[in-house]
Amino acid sequence: MARHKIGIVGIGKISQDQHIPVIRKNRAFDLVAVASTRGLTVEGVPHAFRNQTEMLEGVPDIDAIAICTPPQVRHAIAREILAAGKHVLLEKPPAATLSELTDLADYARERGLVLFTTWHSQYNEGVEKAREYLAPRTVTSLDIQWKEDVRKWHPGQEWIWDAGSFGVFDPGINGLSVATRIMPSPLFITKAELFFPENRDAPIAANLDFRIGDVTTNCRAEFDWRETGDEKWEMTVGTSDGSILKLTRGGRMLTIDGEVVVDGASEEYEGIYERFDELLNRREAHVDEQPFRLVADAFMSGRRITVEPFTE
Amino acid sequence: MARHKIGIVGIGKISQDQHIPVIRKNRAFDLVAVASTRGLTVEGVPHAFRNQTEMLEGVPDIDAIAICTPPQVRHAIAREILAAGKHVLLEKPPAATLSELTDLADYARERGLVLFTTWHSQYNEGVEKAREYLAPRTVTSLDIQWKEDVRKWHPGQEWIWDAGSFGVFDPGINGLSVATRIMPSPLFITKAELFFPENRDAPIAANLDFRIGDVTTNCRAEFDWRETGDEKWEMTVGTSDGSILKLTRGGRMLTIDGEVVVDGASEEYEGIYERFDELLNRREAHVDEQPFRLVADAFMSGRRITVEPFTE
Repeated sequence: MARHKIGIVGIGKISQDQHIPVIRKNRAFDLVAVASTRGLTVEGVPHAFRNQTEMLEGVPDIDAIAICTPPQVRHAIAREILAAGKHVLLEKPPAATLSELTDLADYARERGLVLFTTWHSQYNEGVEKAREYLAPRTVTSLDIQWKEDVRKWHPGQEWIWDAGSFGVFDPGINGLSVATRIMPSPLFITKAELFFPENRDAPIAANLDFRIGDVTTNCRAEFDWRETGDEKWEMTVGTSDGSILKLTRGGRMLTIDGEVVVDGASEEYEGIYERFDELLNRREAHVDEQPFRLVADAFMSGRRITVEPFTE
Repeated sequence: MARHKIGIVGIGKISQDQHIPVIRKNRAFDLVAVASTRGLTVEGVPHAFRNQTEMLEGVPDIDAIAICTPPQVRHAIAREILAAGKHVLLEKPPAATLSELTDLADYARERGLVLFTTWHSQYNEGVEKAREYLAPRTVTSLDIQWKEDVRKWHPGQEWIWDAGSFGVFDPGINGLSVATRIMPSPLFITKAELFFPENRDAPIAANLDFRIGDVTTNCRAEFDWRETGDEKWEMTVGTSDGSILKLTRGGRMLTIDGEVVVDGASEEYEGIYERFDELLNRREAHVDEQPFRLVADAFMSGRRITVEPFTE
């Protein structure tokens, strides 16, 4: 297979920390261009542009573009890239709204192009092993704890509190993306509580109750940005044969009945680009709406509770 | 074609006012059973049960069931009916959450069964004529006004204020179902404001801004349950050739450039059951998620504004 010529639109922290070094390590890809509205360039990448329009004109034989901008502008950018006949990878969350994501999925399908929604937490080895373990079993309980210190993870980012920025669901959606991946039956939200600081337009914490298959009790998630100290990104799953599965460190570590099954270094983005290579070679789309849909369901059905003001 | 043996689960106001009389008038259907948890019976309908389980056992050759219960319990009921190999019609809104609706659509598709999500306002003649008129045109503006007096339309119904009951989106979704039906390109919410009474868990009013195709200005909706006097269920659409289309009375009346094109009596449910007959004969599903997805998008991206308490 020829190497895929790829570009990146949006040169923020996640591009610099993950996409750029990981693409460079992967021999299936050639990183040929970047685009940054702030005019950033990346050493060793032959082309730098202001936006996707310039990129598509400047490198007409590009194969695929990864979109790492804020979610609010992704739909228009992805539409333009797909219209030019190029494949698209979307950072999480894939769009600003579900209608935008559905539209992109339909548009890519009509044109026979690859659209790939990435949920990075799904690419931990522990997650795959958990999925395999649970597949033939019946889940009887789920407890997701996704808690971190917003001051540590989003210092000075005032926009995270804007309406439409999802608030604590920004980390929480990682937990949901792991849960939807490993559960042998679909999750439904039966009750949600959203905690909004008095002075903010996005929730700082959320409690969700789920129904999973016929199981209506003991399935829950707690998201909290008010955690101090170390982050807690973990979930515990009980099954009908009495075993207890535990994923910790965002999916990096898996124990079953107290025994360590996986204790791996994080290779999330390596897994993402291996998968993207596969999808491009097969010209197959991979659009996973489930985590995003659960967030929308939580907002739609959730009770809003006002809590004390948040200041950084 | 043999007549379709049909049952109704949920004997509330909408069943009594619409489904029962309309099914009886339609010669393609035989209304063979009803189910009511309150034990209601309907004169002239041979079987009455407590729930769908009894109905499926009691009338094993039933072809299809219309679900007219509150949305919170629809998913489990529909799952059970589909599992029994029977077709399903869903009153609006089709489920409590998007995840539930997607699950039903997938489940029906896997089994080759008909699932029909009904949005009654779409079945006005004015709506179909508006759709035909706009199809070859470019829309340049949209103004949806969906306002009614909650005290008049929901007297004593305290549950409409529960979280998860959608509030003013209960009527508003009718406007959205008309707009998504007549627009030649998809609608996306770009901004939403949700007005919650201080003492309630559901919005009493909402303002939405849309993007339609490339048009990002002058596209909006205003929903309000605080309207006094007559209800206002209307929308005005401007097109690039300068014409102005106006749908009023929930889609029953259509004027184009001031000239009356349709001024019809409401035959919404007649249209729904004609369509259901077609779908059953073709064994074809019709799942329209768009109006529901826009409501979820509004809740997910909307800013919450507290307004004065509401008491009936």
